[in-house]
Amino acid sequence: MSEATDRVETHFLTIATPEQPFELRGGKQLKHAQIAYETYGTLNDDKSNAILLFHALSGSHHAQGYNPEIPGTGDLWQPEMHQGWWEDFIGPGKAIDTDKFFIISANYLGGCYGSTGPASIDPETGKPFGSKFPHLWTTDVVNSQLHLLEHFGIEQLHATIGTSVGGLMALTLATRYPEKVRKVVPMLSGFKTTILNRLLLFEQIMAIENDKEFNGGDYYEGNYPNHGLALARMISHKTFVHLDTFERRAKADKIEQPSHLDWYDLRDQYQSYMLYQGMKFVKRFDANTYLRIIDLWSRFDAVAECDKESPEELLQVCKDAGHQFLVFSVDSDFCFYPEEQAVLVKNLELVGVDNMHITVHSDKGHDSFLLEPNLYTPHLKAVLED
Amino acid sequence: MSEATDRVETHFLTIATPEQPFELRGGKQLKHAQIAYETYGTLNDDKSNAILLFHALSGSHHAQGYNPEIPGTGDLWQPEMHQGWWEDFIGPGKAIDTDKFFIISANYLGGCYGSTGPASIDPETGKPFGSKFPHLWTTDVVNSQLHLLEHFGIEQLHATIGTSVGGLMALTLATRYPEKVRKVVPMLSGFKTTILNRLLLFEQIMAIENDKEFNGGDYYEGNYPNHGLALARMISHKTFVHLDTFERRAKADKIEQPSHLDWYDLRDQYQSYMLYQGMKFVKRFDANTYLRIIDLWSRFDAVAECDKESPEELLQVCKDAGHQFLVFSVDSDFCFYPEEQAVLVKNLELVGVDNMHITVHSDKGHDSFLLEPNLYTPHLKAVLED
Repeated sequence: MSEATDRVETHFLTIATPEQPFELRGGKQLKHAQIAYETYGTLNDDKSNAILLFHALSGSHHAQGYNPEIPGTGDLWQPEMHQGWWEDFIGPGKAIDTDKFFIISANYLGGCYGSTGPASIDPETGKPFGSKFPHLWTTDVVNSQLHLLEHFGIEQLHATIGTSVGGLMALTLATRYPEKVRKVVPMLSGFKTTILNRLLLFEQIMAIENDKEFNGGDYYEGNYPNHGLALARMISHKTFVHLDTFERRAKADKIEQPSHLDWYDLRDQYQSYMLYQGMKFVKRFDANTYLRIIDLWSRFDAVAECDKESPEELLQVCKDAGHQFLVFSVDSDFCFYPEEQAVLVKNLELVGVDNMHITVHSDKGHDSFLLEPNLYTPHLKAVLED
Repeated sequence: MSEATDRVETHFLTIATPEQPFELRGGKQLKHAQIAYETYGTLNDDKSNAILLFHALSGSHHAQGYNPEIPGTGDLWQPEMHQGWWEDFIGPGKAIDTDKFFIISANYLGGCYGSTGPASIDPETGKPFGSKFPHLWTTDVVNSQLHLLEHFGIEQLHATIGTSVGGLMALTLATRYPEKVRKVVPMLSGFKTTILNRLLLFEQIMAIENDKEFNGGDYYEGNYPNHGLALARMISHKTFVHLDTFERRAKADKIEQPSHLDWYDLRDQYQSYMLYQGMKFVKRFDANTYLRIIDLWSRFDAVAECDKESPEELLQVCKDAGHQFLVFSVDSDFCFYPEEQAVLVKNLELVGVDNMHITVHSDKGHDSFLLEPNLYTPHLKAVLED
């Protein structure tokens, strides 16, 4: 991580009012909603240099610079988040060059870092939405961010980039609104959620539902479902790391018997490390937000998301729009296996969409996209600056 | 499954009394304990034809024939268990030939199918042991079954066979008590529990601990931690099946919204199938027993289990005793990967222990050992009848 300390600020854009509600794909609507976002770089005069970045499941819109405070996020905005999560990718001369591009990065609708989500106060009741906050589709997150394009008067994005779950959104943006983007960069992401991931995500949903504090999502006035959320994070975290690397990391850790384990005698350094990751996560994330996102991920299918019949029909619009795809995979990724991206690429090739598929070698697994800018920078620069 | 309906009965052997308590590896003792077991075939005059079979994690000692009732097991002895789980492997002329061998199959100590376990009444208090039932090591299960050899006057087993977690016990028997056995058959099992499995097992422990009914294990007088146990089973069940096969199986299933999911809208056939498996499992298994077994599995290390320093030292005793190993793996096994058995085999070869390692091809994953007798019978017969 570089030591950039440029102070950045989160901004907010209202996307729903009682007069102009936000329509959700599932049929419901939000009468009150805002999106939290940051921008880096400068929008040029013809507004042709904008890049929309979609963060990962548990990430935030705060990708670059230093931001110690996001109004309304309370204790969730932990110090570990204050430095941008993609510091080494975004900046002057970096993979996403702020001297050339205007980057927009927004917190997901339903999120817990400033965009309206289940923990937000519903003005109709004066209480947090909780269980009343609707289920979301990937499309809803994309639609919420189109308001930012309108806000800035951007007709067409230079590019959209999405990491992990964010890649599903980049793909959905490109296929639903092909005229709004030129270059599409899904990184370590997928095309249709695999059975394995659907099972892993369902386990996480059950872990939270089973927590005695969950109460259907209406827990804000009592204890939070921290044990369930920690278990959910543990279930997913093991897919983010490469177990060989994990072995090296965990060895440095000491084992502390956590107070809430009343039967199990924790002696295993790997289990201890994972529990620590889980308990750390609950300090910075809201369980209801987590559920909304893993729910939309669980049922993601690029074709169905756009109400199309086949991958060919889906991607024909990308061909027609002249899209250029840059698809990244990591050979040690156990979260989004390279095979998933290969399905997208196979279909891009079938239809004849311009594309490059780069599989980088790493021992860091899925987390590679956070840790190894050198593996991605050359191709990112080449395609973005082409 | 064949339609054998030979009625068999479970027998019980007392292995601990206040005068002669059962000493556990962890330092505690049981003053009251019995082992439930069945036998198939006939012990020959010189008592040289006995085979000790160790069942899998969630299996029972009831491997062959029809047994509709095991005293003391209550509702847990569900109809699906009444026919033996290894019906197609055990019988006249079968892989384990009851015309030739005397097979002993016992429920694990700590189990819920007749052997003393956490749900058993502690005569000292008149209540179930619950949280007071000690943690177990693989060695304890093995030691409990040595009482059966003594009971039958068997000096040396012809063979020991263990499937899945049972394979860990067969290996421990062979390495701790090399003089007590000639042939050793670990099937779809391991040598040292992998990091991945330790994480998966820990998730399952957390799933049960997080259940609001768990109460440290003292739940017998109230509601049972069924949601936690069901989630635990879901987490493990996905490793028992091969996902391609699973895809075919789950498709036939209809989706029912379960009453206890108060937030999630279940629409996914695979998730539904897995939840069904989880909820079915809780009807036939005790959460405390489950915890005892996954705990001993989680920390299994063949070398440490026998207080040895190295695999070579561990297996030298097998060489000295003239053991013959037959090791089975399945190429699609996601529970015990073939690589785990390969570690055992590599070390057997290093030391010079007679061995065969057979990896069968199957699309059934770990469950293959329950479903495909033809894949195992030729080698089993050849080695057992050699």
